[in-house]
Amino acid sequence: MDIGDFASTRCDALAWDKQGGLLPAVVQDADTLRVLMLGYMDRAALQATLATRRVTFFSRSRQRLWTKGESSGHFLDLVAIEADCDHDTLLLQARPQGPTCHLGRASCFEHAPGDFLAELDALVARRERERPEGSYTTALFAGGLRGIAQKVGEEGVETALAAVVQDDAALCGEAADLLFHLQVLLRARGLSLQDVVTVLRERHRGVASRADG
Amino acid sequence: MDIGDFASTRCDALAWDKQGGLLPAVVQDADTLRVLMLGYMDRAALQATLATRRVTFFSRSRQRLWTKGESSGHFLDLVAIEADCDHDTLLLQARPQGPTCHLGRASCFEHAPGDFLAELDALVARRERERPEGSYTTALFAGGLRGIAQKVGEEGVETALAAVVQDDAALCGEAADLLFHLQVLLRARGLSLQDVVTVLRERHRGVASRADG
Repeated sequence: MDIGDFASTRCDALAWDKQGGLLPAVVQDADTLRVLMLGYMDRAALQATLATRRVTFFSRSRQRLWTKGESSGHFLDLVAIEADCDHDTLLLQARPQGPTCHLGRASCFEHAPGDFLAELDALVARRERERPEGSYTTALFAGGLRGIAQKVGEEGVETALAAVVQDDAALCGEAADLLFHLQVLLRARGLSLQDVVTVLRERHRGVASRADG
Repeated sequence: MDIGDFASTRCDALAWDKQGGLLPAVVQDADTLRVLMLGYMDRAALQATLATRRVTFFSRSRQRLWTKGESSGHFLDLVAIEADCDHDTLLLQARPQGPTCHLGRASCFEHAPGDFLAELDALVARRERERPEGSYTTALFAGGLRGIAQKVGEEGVETALAAVVQDDAALCGEAADLLFHLQVLLRARGLSLQDVVTVLRERHRGVASRADG
């Protein structure tokens, strides 16, 4: 939900009295959908989160407001926020400025799954920026747009051929090559897989809710 | 985390005393990573969840164990479970047998995002099973593997050409066609995009944690 809308209309509707003035707040990576942590917010923490766009909790152990990242620098930049149907739990999407867990892990849940294609998109973007020597992806970017485009065409044909004459492992391998080179091609044009997913989502609007039903 | 490992080693290590014998439990769709709901578990609810592989909470309003779906049939089938670094919060991945929210929505958080490519995979699989009349996807499956493979080859080439001579919207449109037909092709071979993502994940092992850092 849009942060401004939430701030103006929803804070008072939350069930603050149900749990001693504190609501659990689940924070999820806005890009990978990995669940990063759960903390608690009182009204002041929620208002600070909305005002600064940095996720801020009420620390039960320290009994004070605690902006995640205030000492480590690993802030959680707020992207979206919503309450559940009972108005007693908050779900936040955020972009983490580093590992969320104090143990140096992306998430306080060590094995929390994330969308790997989104992670690969982020890696490809970093390779384009940093151009590390010896990286295959760097070589692709150095070769230029036309060469990357040609690879996508070739991998499409190789995937087609694998589908009709090869086994599952070979087909998955070719399809993985195709997807990866597509991600590199999109990045070379300043785009990402997310832009393509947005097109698919528009085309299939309404599919998501039915698919879950 | 493997459910059996969790059951045998982790229950006693949880911080049951910290919050009056109840721990918040976040439930996430195992396929789309959409956050579905948050409930509370006492020891008995956790043990019931692990024993039956159906998510069971302690209902604070009814003051008794409550297996999600016991009246609606919309159970949450447990796939994985993990505690956080503080041992005071649980994260579960589950496959929902219908809408999770009592309002008929997939999630108790109305706008909770999910991985759209996973949803599209599920839709393609349903089209293959049900073959609804008038559906383009049905026509693709009816045309057979060779025809679908040919489409993937063509869309790969069209994406390549769009990348070198067309604007962003045209490129994203061609890439969307390519991705969709790739999903149909994989399904026609009894595979899914998830199988391809597994290959990419294996190739880039360790990338995820660095990408988040």
